[in-house]
Amino acid sequence: MIELNFSHMMEEVIGSRGLSERIIEDLRDRAKEVHKQIGDRLLPELAFIDLISQDTSEIKRIAREIRRGAESFLILGIGGSALGPRAILEALSPFHNLQKIPKIFIYDNVDPRTLKQILALTDLKTTSVNVISKSGSTAETAAAFMILWDEMKKVPCSDISKRFIATTDPEKGNLRKIVNEEGLKSLAIPQGVGGRYSVLSPVGLLLSEVIGIDADELLMGARDIQKKCSDQELWKNPAYLFGTLLYLMDREKHRTIDVMMAYADGLKPFTEWFCQLWAESLGKQGRGLTPYPSIGSTDQHSQLQLWIDGTQDKVLIFIRVNDYSVDIQLPDIFQNMEGLSYLSGHTLSELIKAEEEATELALAKAGRPNMTITVPQIDAYHMGQLFHFLELATAFTGLLYEINPFNQPGVEEGKNLTYGMMGKKGFEEKRKEVEDHREKKARWRI
Amino acid sequence: MIELNFSHMMEEVIGSRGLSERIIEDLRDRAKEVHKQIGDRLLPELAFIDLISQDTSEIKRIAREIRRGAESFLILGIGGSALGPRAILEALSPFHNLQKIPKIFIYDNVDPRTLKQILALTDLKTTSVNVISKSGSTAETAAAFMILWDEMKKVPCSDISKRFIATTDPEKGNLRKIVNEEGLKSLAIPQGVGGRYSVLSPVGLLLSEVIGIDADELLMGARDIQKKCSDQELWKNPAYLFGTLLYLMDREKHRTIDVMMAYADGLKPFTEWFCQLWAESLGKQGRGLTPYPSIGSTDQHSQLQLWIDGTQDKVLIFIRVNDYSVDIQLPDIFQNMEGLSYLSGHTLSELIKAEEEATELALAKAGRPNMTITVPQIDAYHMGQLFHFLELATAFTGLLYEINPFNQPGVEEGKNLTYGMMGKKGFEEKRKEVEDHREKKARWRI
Repeated sequence: MIELNFSHMMEEVIGSRGLSERIIEDLRDRAKEVHKQIGDRLLPELAFIDLISQDTSEIKRIAREIRRGAESFLILGIGGSALGPRAILEALSPFHNLQKIPKIFIYDNVDPRTLKQILALTDLKTTSVNVISKSGSTAETAAAFMILWDEMKKVPCSDISKRFIATTDPEKGNLRKIVNEEGLKSLAIPQGVGGRYSVLSPVGLLLSEVIGIDADELLMGARDIQKKCSDQELWKNPAYLFGTLLYLMDREKHRTIDVMMAYADGLKPFTEWFCQLWAESLGKQGRGLTPYPSIGSTDQHSQLQLWIDGTQDKVLIFIRVNDYSVDIQLPDIFQNMEGLSYLSGHTLSELIKAEEEATELALAKAGRPNMTITVPQIDAYHMGQLFHFLELATAFTGLLYEINPFNQPGVEEGKNLTYGMMGKKGFEEKRKEVEDHREKKARWRI
Repeated sequence: MIELNFSHMMEEVIGSRGLSERIIEDLRDRAKEVHKQIGDRLLPELAFIDLISQDTSEIKRIAREIRRGAESFLILGIGGSALGPRAILEALSPFHNLQKIPKIFIYDNVDPRTLKQILALTDLKTTSVNVISKSGSTAETAAAFMILWDEMKKVPCSDISKRFIATTDPEKGNLRKIVNEEGLKSLAIPQGVGGRYSVLSPVGLLLSEVIGIDADELLMGARDIQKKCSDQELWKNPAYLFGTLLYLMDREKHRTIDVMMAYADGLKPFTEWFCQLWAESLGKQGRGLTPYPSIGSTDQHSQLQLWIDGTQDKVLIFIRVNDYSVDIQLPDIFQNMEGLSYLSGHTLSELIKAEEEATELALAKAGRPNMTITVPQIDAYHMGQLFHFLELATAFTGLLYEINPFNQPGVEEGKNLTYGMMGKKGFEEKRKEVEDHREKKARWRI
């Protein structure tokens, strides 16, 4: 089971930059209220919690079909539709495309260079395309889908409907309509489940099964952490404590940047997944916390200087791995060189764990708050725990701030301006606005 | 030539959240002082500027040898020794390992899972290892080097000295000593050039030549931007303006997070390279700016909500690409669906450029300052411009703050604690400190 150590958030351990027990205690009743809101599914989007007990048989059936026929599996999706699958892929099957079939491509942009490369690297005759969009009208995903549909049609003797799997709303939207008209295979993102809370829905689970990772293991991890996080008592609930501590570091100590630093290369996309979850859920109405993705020990040589000696505006969240499953011993060589010889006899995992512990302590000594999530192993079961733990903690934190952690009202204007430029009906004024603005911009350039 | 548009930093365009011309004008004399310091090479580390006129023949010669014999090229390095090479690799040769030889691996951590995978994916008989460390005593790089040295020795009939290229100090350190004793090939990181300013030294240029990118193109770009940024007049010097604007946004508007959002998948490691440069150079003495890496349009579906609607603490730096070199047209299909049909007839590069312009404007309308660096194309020449431009701007900004942009005093304590745990002589007390601290930490966990 994953474990949270929050010593370095506490006044008692790190001094006045830390939080007192009292101030946490003061939020106990408030936490109980939020606990009730979650239990009552106050907002329909809290439905993500119920994903943990879903039936995976249809996902498994479709994945088996894909594994039989496909040499490449291409995901079209953006935001939550891409970040969750990529987090699973990199954590649980690193260097996948250099050693396994089907090769996995995740196209989550509209960069023409990337899509050209993907098309050159795949044989469409043996490619399955998973288009993922809840609404079915995300511009980037729609554009990629249209291109792939058209390209696939040019492949001789191919039954186009068999090459696509749509993961979308169970009833509404363009994608669902195309599924019905063209007879595509499809999976439903359950009602209420939003993009950034969808990794444990078919969005992430189909990819998981396609790369040979048992989706039920992910869900079992999620169920077990849900049990551990079901107590209404703040002090007994790690997800609520996680959120409360970061909330208090914002409110009481003006620490508004939360760095997630995972000591494992394969968790890099996982930290980026968390950043979407935390940023979009809490960043609204003129406030919000800025999550920052990071990898240890690598970023000790990139960002640590700023974190330990820069502005007092951050909290570090370490992800420590207990058992890396494999290890390598450092050989007894270069014994005449003091700068190297001390490493002999140790293992790489000893070194990386020492680096993690040293960084925690160095930060604490400099009065820089941090906490640590310890993960026993990087496997499907524990990834399921991490995903669900952070989703739960994020929803809790949003409700603690009394904001809706499930909407993203701020991104509409950018979409509308894009529609205008792309000539979508009804957005003619937006186009004009962009064009007029270009003149205003002309002066300040060099 | 790359171009900077800073309209959306100006009061005149975005209103009171912007900067007045006056306040920029007030820094003109100060900029001249800093210009003189740079010209006089006040600090020896300003030597990075002189890299632009280096002779690349030795780099080219070694790269030719590697290309002849190697199926894999493995870089061992961390921080600046890895971020620069990776930025070049991903920008200029995306999906490299799926289509080209030698395959490139960059091991910039001490994660045992990653190194096991790399060893499984490479045949050491046809692998060249480039170990990069200025000091020659970076613990992570030393550990990786010791393992590779030992593994390489086990390969029958291999001349071990021919399999390694050391990129290190011209005279000092463990690595240089090993070069001399064992007769390794080597390249020198010139005196004064620090890790995060070393991408245009042999650190980045050897990798560049190994993947078939002409190092002289990168340097030509750097020389041309150096010319463009050599004016002492703030208003005529884009590097100085870039730094001054971000400095003023910190000092006058309390905007301390600088997001670099590049609209090209291949520039992701480039934004991470910038983040090390900016963070380690400016983050010290209790202040500093937090750089944030980002990719558009992808992160419009991940971070944009926070940037446009969250706390007023950020400045966005867009990287806009004028010509993606390739393009794909969106087909005339699904004409009965309004949510898709407007895209028909456009191209992907039209869409991604519209997204970029729309996001700029949406932010500006919401009073969120931003500026844009436009890059004509993603090629070696323009990457050379980007690298050198930002290094120059960072050094200028550090001097503007009156801090040393070339040191990183904050990371020493973490290193010492790690030495203690790994049993390095002279660090016994640090080990004890870590062990004693473990007891203090035991209480606050769940």
